[in-house]
Amino acid sequence: MSPRGRPRDTEVDERVLQAATELLLRHGYGGLSTDEVAERAGIAKTTLYRRWPTKDHLALAVVARLQDHDEITDTGDIRRDLTDYMEKVAAGLNRMRVAGLPPGQESRSAGTVAELVAAAARHDDVGALERDVYARRNALACRLIERARDEGRLRPDVDPMTLLEQLAGALYYRVLITGHPVDRAYAERLVAAALDGAL
Amino acid sequence: MSPRGRPRDTEVDERVLQAATELLLRHGYGGLSTDEVAERAGIAKTTLYRRWPTKDHLALAVVARLQDHDEITDTGDIRRDLTDYMEKVAAGLNRMRVAGLPPGQESRSAGTVAELVAAAARHDDVGALERDVYARRNALACRLIERARDEGRLRPDVDPMTLLEQLAGALYYRVLITGHPVDRAYAERLVAAALDGAL
Repeated sequence: MSPRGRPRDTEVDERVLQAATELLLRHGYGGLSTDEVAERAGIAKTTLYRRWPTKDHLALAVVARLQDHDEITDTGDIRRDLTDYMEKVAAGLNRMRVAGLPPGQESRSAGTVAELVAAAARHDDVGALERDVYARRNALACRLIERARDEGRLRPDVDPMTLLEQLAGALYYRVLITGHPVDRAYAERLVAAALDGAL
Repeated sequence: MSPRGRPRDTEVDERVLQAATELLLRHGYGGLSTDEVAERAGIAKTTLYRRWPTKDHLALAVVARLQDHDEITDTGDIRRDLTDYMEKVAAGLNRMRVAGLPPGQESRSAGTVAELVAAAARHDDVGALERDVYARRNALACRLIERARDEGRLRPDVDPMTLLEQLAGALYYRVLITGHPVDRAYAERLVAAALDGAL
């Protein structure tokens, strides 16, 4: 996530990202303060700003780190693997959706998911980083689909990215646009619809 | 779109919304000013604020009005009808995506689409209005899918909303998250994928 290509002190990075993750999840986007993250991580503000020039950069690094923890598993059962992965994507969205709300409170608002989308739209460099994070992540998911296709478990003409966009897109659409819940049951329905087709 | 249920002067409304649409499309979200809209529409600011308390309310009314102009046509050919509708949704997203940019300039950023999503997430009443706008719109699109299903042109177990979410969701995901283009060619690929299924 370093935009400057400088050698990284991974131990310091990890401390910063852990503090930022805690603050973001507990207090939401509005409650994430770079000053407080620097203090909690025990580093100088200037050190923090050299790596993450703004709060938006830091928030995006948190999302990238959380996504990296979501494993994409290939068991050979593509229906199950896609459903499991979509459940993880949904859980990640829900985590950001309720960031900053009192524990247990649900929300129809997209919350911090929308703030991150807006930050990426507002600043060119944050947008470019955000698209990189998703491109890297989606390449992994596409490889899962490609393997299933190449082994004859999916139609030979399946376009992996279009299939992925139908699935992940539906989850983001519910969170960002219609305010409907996303969970395991929805992931199952969605994957079944995309695999079986409407015709 | 009136949040207060007051009788409407539709001619004044139309003048306000036309002025707001022009400003929003030409200058983007940052360039939309309620003061300037009131002046262009020739009404008192207080009159404008009574109906649209903030710029966010006004921007959402613009989106609702533009969406109402996108007809959903039922020719009996569900593949074509869904592709045509998705092309309209894509065109609407592209219009908002480049709002405020110099003519002809393309963008990987979501632009005003993201600003609207953030406004809906930030203010409960704007969020509720936004979800109403989409619920109304999506109910019309679902009826198109239901008719095709009930006439045996789609599988009997198709869930119209899930199908719609797969389609519209993929478009919004490209615009808001991955920055990829959405156009007629993509709408065709997407509808084919959703109808034919990946298995």
